Amino acid sequence: MQGTRLDIARIQAARRVIDPIFLDTPLYRCEALEPGLGCAVSVKLETANPVRSFKGRGTELVASLLAGNGSRAVVCASAGNLGQALAWSARGRRLDVTVVASRSAPAVKLDRIRALGATLELVDGDHELARDRAAAIARHDGIRLLEDSLDIETCEGAATIGLELVDALPSFDAVLIALGGGALATGVGHVLKARAPEVEVICVQPLGAPAMTRSWHERRVITTDSTDTIADGVAGRRPIPAVLDDLLLIADDAVLVREASITTGMRMLLHHAGLVVEPSAALGVAAILEDRDRFAGRHVVTIVCGSNVDLDAYHRWIGATVPVRAGERAS
Amino acid sequence: MQGTRLDIARIQAARRVIDPIFLDTPLYRCEALEPGLGCAVSVKLETANPVRSFKGRGTELVASLLAGNGSRAVVCASAGNLGQALAWSARGRRLDVTVVASRSAPAVKLDRIRALGATLELVDGDHELARDRAAAIARHDGIRLLEDSLDIETCEGAATIGLELVDALPSFDAVLIALGGGALATGVGHVLKARAPEVEVICVQPLGAPAMTRSWHERRVITTDSTDTIADGVAGRRPIPAVLDDLLLIADDAVLVREASITTGMRMLLHHAGLVVEPSAALGVAAILEDRDRFAGRHVVTIVCGSNVDLDAYHRWIGATVPVRAGERAS
Repeated sequence: MQGTRLDIARIQAARRVIDPIFLDTPLYRCEALEPGLGCAVSVKLETANPVRSFKGRGTELVASLLAGNGSRAVVCASAGNLGQALAWSARGRRLDVTVVASRSAPAVKLDRIRALGATLELVDGDHELARDRAAAIARHDGIRLLEDSLDIETCEGAATIGLELVDALPSFDAVLIALGGGALATGVGHVLKARAPEVEVICVQPLGAPAMTRSWHERRVITTDSTDTIADGVAGRRPIPAVLDDLLLIADDAVLVREASITTGMRMLLHHAGLVVEPSAALGVAAILEDRDRFAGRHVVTIVCGSNVDLDAYHRWIGATVPVRAGERAS
Repeated sequence: MQGTRLDIARIQAARRVIDPIFLDTPLYRCEALEPGLGCAVSVKLETANPVRSFKGRGTELVASLLAGNGSRAVVCASAGNLGQALAWSARGRRLDVTVVASRSAPAVKLDRIRALGATLELVDGDHELARDRAAAIARHDGIRLLEDSLDIETCEGAATIGLELVDALPSFDAVLIALGGGALATGVGHVLKARAPEVEVICVQPLGAPAMTRSWHERRVITTDSTDTIADGVAGRRPIPAVLDDLLLIADDAVLVREASITTGMRMLLHHAGLVVEPSAALGVAAILEDRDRFAGRHVVTIVCGSNVDLDAYHRWIGATVPVRAGERAS
């Protein structure tokens, strides 16, 4: 694949740096999902690791490089998963991590960032304000700012998922990828277009956070004033130009889905695959639900990219209620 | 490890026969579980595959052998997971599968057995009556009877989990293994005792289905008249003598746990690891909960052996209620 910022040789080399605990994740057919979706569905499961998302692939690269450079500190903005993964990768490498997040991020993500030893700073505002604050900290303290999707290591880490997909048999007709900042989509998409160009690369974003999808369709950066989605992991407003440029080269399509489709997708993944997922991880199933004809009879892979979700909200979204009883939360 | 029916060379050879989709499953620390348990905990996750349990490892061996012999049919009794896995492995190998199960087995397991093309016969009684009926069918029809835990392939398949555990770093202090018929325990235990004898092998069974554990402690087969546990996957009453003989050689201990500990274990695996599991897969966590002092400060692996659970019962057990709304179940 020519023209993007990614390179297959570097992605292959990344596999040798990333802790194997994040690599070679399960990829399997979920036939119980298929009657409800009208197509063959395989999941690429990125949740069965210590940080419950794919982000460790990228943070392993970043932390390894920083440690090799003799760096001592790094700061990032995070919706929650990047910060958790960076804290995990930095621990043991003598790197101090500061994570800036929105006060409205899921408590489970914030709790894990703290538990992994990072300094957590909360901002009263959304992810874009957290990005601004992280940049200010980096300038003030003179430390490295890790920018998700802009920094190539975050894309290369995600791209190792693409290598695992193209090495799998049987091959697939389409891959559905959650679209937020774009690291996952451009990384996986680059490998697919380079190695299996016949596979359709479809990015999926919530209607309530459509900035990158609109930008892709109009081929120029379009920002929005606000977001309104439960899919906290992909709720950006200001696409990064260099990432959009890559996305324009590798994506075959970018689609928007309704919140109701996301919650139905979450419920289907629980009922028919036994998987608890965060909203961003249900975007692929949501896209199938909204356009069954497009996928009918085809074999589709959806990347289940994270499972860090507050359970009270989760049960509310999928239609269950959980009574909190004394003593239960402590366990 | 001398004296058991298992053999390391055969177990290594088994890895070359089993579909890789069942092998090299995730093994990772779940630090979020640890404050509640007082020890380091890693999970070996056997649910991220097309049949959502470890049983595919054994049925791949069985189906491959039968297909190689020119066999056309096989019958087994199953609490649900073996039958589902056998149906999966037989499909595409031109083998007709009949599964005999208790009418009280979880609907999700029975539905998947049917969906995978097996003939399902239900008996009014428990798993031991299903075993009797399966044997009668085998005699009458002159076809192969697959007996879980007695037939060595079921133990060898499970034992490949043991190879993956001993190859992992860092090593562990103890492994907690759900004990039912005994294939999982004797298989994994054999490899651990042969390759990492310092690791404690602890079998865990419900107080409501204690036959094999009592047999292990008294060193002779003890049967019970009934079972009373939600852990349907391990609810046997009649231990198999040859399996008990192996278990006596490889297990360091066998413990019984209360139902309340199993449900707390299920709830903790959901809340702190994001994992929906069937009751049998929570036995290890239940064992830690019941004897924290024993495990304090040690590194324990628990094998999460299956996730096929009826969600209504699951939510009832963990303390959530799920309102059924029109149209939702169809999805």
